[in-house]
Amino acid sequence: MECVSLPPLSNFAICGGTHGNELTGVYILREMQKHNVEKVGSVSITTVLSNPRAVDACRRYTDRDLNRCFTDDLLSSPITESTPYELRRAQELNAHLGPKGSEEAVDLLCDMHNTTSNMGLCIIFNSADWLILHICKYLQSKITSMPVRALQMDLPLSEAFSVDSLGKHGFSFEIGPQPHGVLRADVFNTMKEAVDLTIEWLQQFNSGRTFEGGEVEAYTRWKTVHYPRDPTTDEITAAIHPQLQDNDFKLLQPGDPIFLSLSGETVKHEGDALYPVFVNECAYYEQKIAYHLTQKSTLTLPSINVKKD
Amino acid sequence: MECVSLPPLSNFAICGGTHGNELTGVYILREMQKHNVEKVGSVSITTVLSNPRAVDACRRYTDRDLNRCFTDDLLSSPITESTPYELRRAQELNAHLGPKGSEEAVDLLCDMHNTTSNMGLCIIFNSADWLILHICKYLQSKITSMPVRALQMDLPLSEAFSVDSLGKHGFSFEIGPQPHGVLRADVFNTMKEAVDLTIEWLQQFNSGRTFEGGEVEAYTRWKTVHYPRDPTTDEITAAIHPQLQDNDFKLLQPGDPIFLSLSGETVKHEGDALYPVFVNECAYYEQKIAYHLTQKSTLTLPSINVKKD
Repeated sequence: MECVSLPPLSNFAICGGTHGNELTGVYILREMQKHNVEKVGSVSITTVLSNPRAVDACRRYTDRDLNRCFTDDLLSSPITESTPYELRRAQELNAHLGPKGSEEAVDLLCDMHNTTSNMGLCIIFNSADWLILHICKYLQSKITSMPVRALQMDLPLSEAFSVDSLGKHGFSFEIGPQPHGVLRADVFNTMKEAVDLTIEWLQQFNSGRTFEGGEVEAYTRWKTVHYPRDPTTDEITAAIHPQLQDNDFKLLQPGDPIFLSLSGETVKHEGDALYPVFVNECAYYEQKIAYHLTQKSTLTLPSINVKKD
Repeated sequence: MECVSLPPLSNFAICGGTHGNELTGVYILREMQKHNVEKVGSVSITTVLSNPRAVDACRRYTDRDLNRCFTDDLLSSPITESTPYELRRAQELNAHLGPKGSEEAVDLLCDMHNTTSNMGLCIIFNSADWLILHICKYLQSKITSMPVRALQMDLPLSEAFSVDSLGKHGFSFEIGPQPHGVLRADVFNTMKEAVDLTIEWLQQFNSGRTFEGGEVEAYTRWKTVHYPRDPTTDEITAAIHPQLQDNDFKLLQPGDPIFLSLSGETVKHEGDALYPVFVNECAYYEQKIAYHLTQKSTLTLPSINVKKD
């Protein structure tokens, strides 16, 4: 495979507080802003608290989920008096960090998230992107405090709904388990290490280093599994089975237990063997989502380096 | 020590959803109500969803913390149009399950809670009560899925602020770690076992069994430790140190690390050796409380049995 040359990555935006009760990103931004981190070598750094109103309330969002507001349709919808706060904020962020899909957009956007699921450090992106996958490979080789995995949402840019889709390249860090509204030092330290290593990678890339090709394992979102519900009240009637709880990214085989009903019956997995992610994520109760299932594949990367003028 | 005889315990009230995002109790009540559990042998059972409005919102409370509303002063304060919802609800519950301190009050009240701290199963009560301590000893002898401990708040009844203070005897079950807004099957099963064993104990007591005296270890609340804060903004500037995180009930010695600041400095424990509890509890961030410290003591119990007519 030939070496791929890409333009330099001069502008790096780091966002946090997109969900106001996911505290790791909020505290990392505070620390960076306190130390006026605005430029590291060849890389200009922009730090953005995405949803200050939700951060103040320590809630995921106030009117609607900000991290579902960045589709082309929503970003171009007219603003009226009744427009939800988060939709207005999404258009502000699009003006500041995008516009999405344009030449003016930041070169790389990284958004920091937490999950109550046992996901370790997960790098989430919308579609396969050599640059993101090289950063992922770099972090996998450097971070030892928890597993580092790549999760692909597999959405075209126009339908990509997350804040990171504003950048020319973009991804989210998702770390867990950590209860929402709580700050754990171990999770904070790993997120900080991941941000620092990303900046280190960008500097090495800009200064001309060739990153050798190779292979990266990625998990691709396949289907969504909902909780069993009472047909009359629609209330959840089962919890994640103890054998599935905390076992994100562990292959789920047909016949494996997935739910334990409140009265003690076990429900088993049917269909293909797949990898569960976001198992028992707090924010998914609203939609009664129990977990997502993913397929694992091995992606072959070309070598990459910076395009010279 | 002589055997203590106490009146029979005919009325048992089980509350949950006092904090609306602590889901274990909410789901246990739903299951009990679905199966119309109203009487088990000699014991009448009353199930109460304490704060339905907060449960609907999946938040700790809507106007103010319900589980701080049961002091004598608040229960006797006049209700006006501007009275917060939870204060009105506290007075309703007092009429339904109390009145606090009266002969009409339920014989035993148990309130179900969750914590994000690694507390195992904790039985919390306001002041030493042979009956509660005997139930605690019974649960310690039966439950093997997690440690069972007794935590004494050491408050006189008039100042006791929690819903369980409405009963002639009362305590809370506090189980963790579990993120607020999440239901874990392992935590659900242990809470259910604890409730079932409490009912079993009450039946045995009422039917004339003498429970032999002995010793129970109890932790008594001693002092509260707050997070380090920025003197200008009052924002939290440190997380619980990884060596303290998840180590509730493990003796904290002078010089042991307690906080890790966002910039990486360690803060150490000063003063007496004491036992931390509620370490990194989510709901305590509002008041910037990092944990409580307790003293451990061994209480000697008399034998108890039911008073015969």
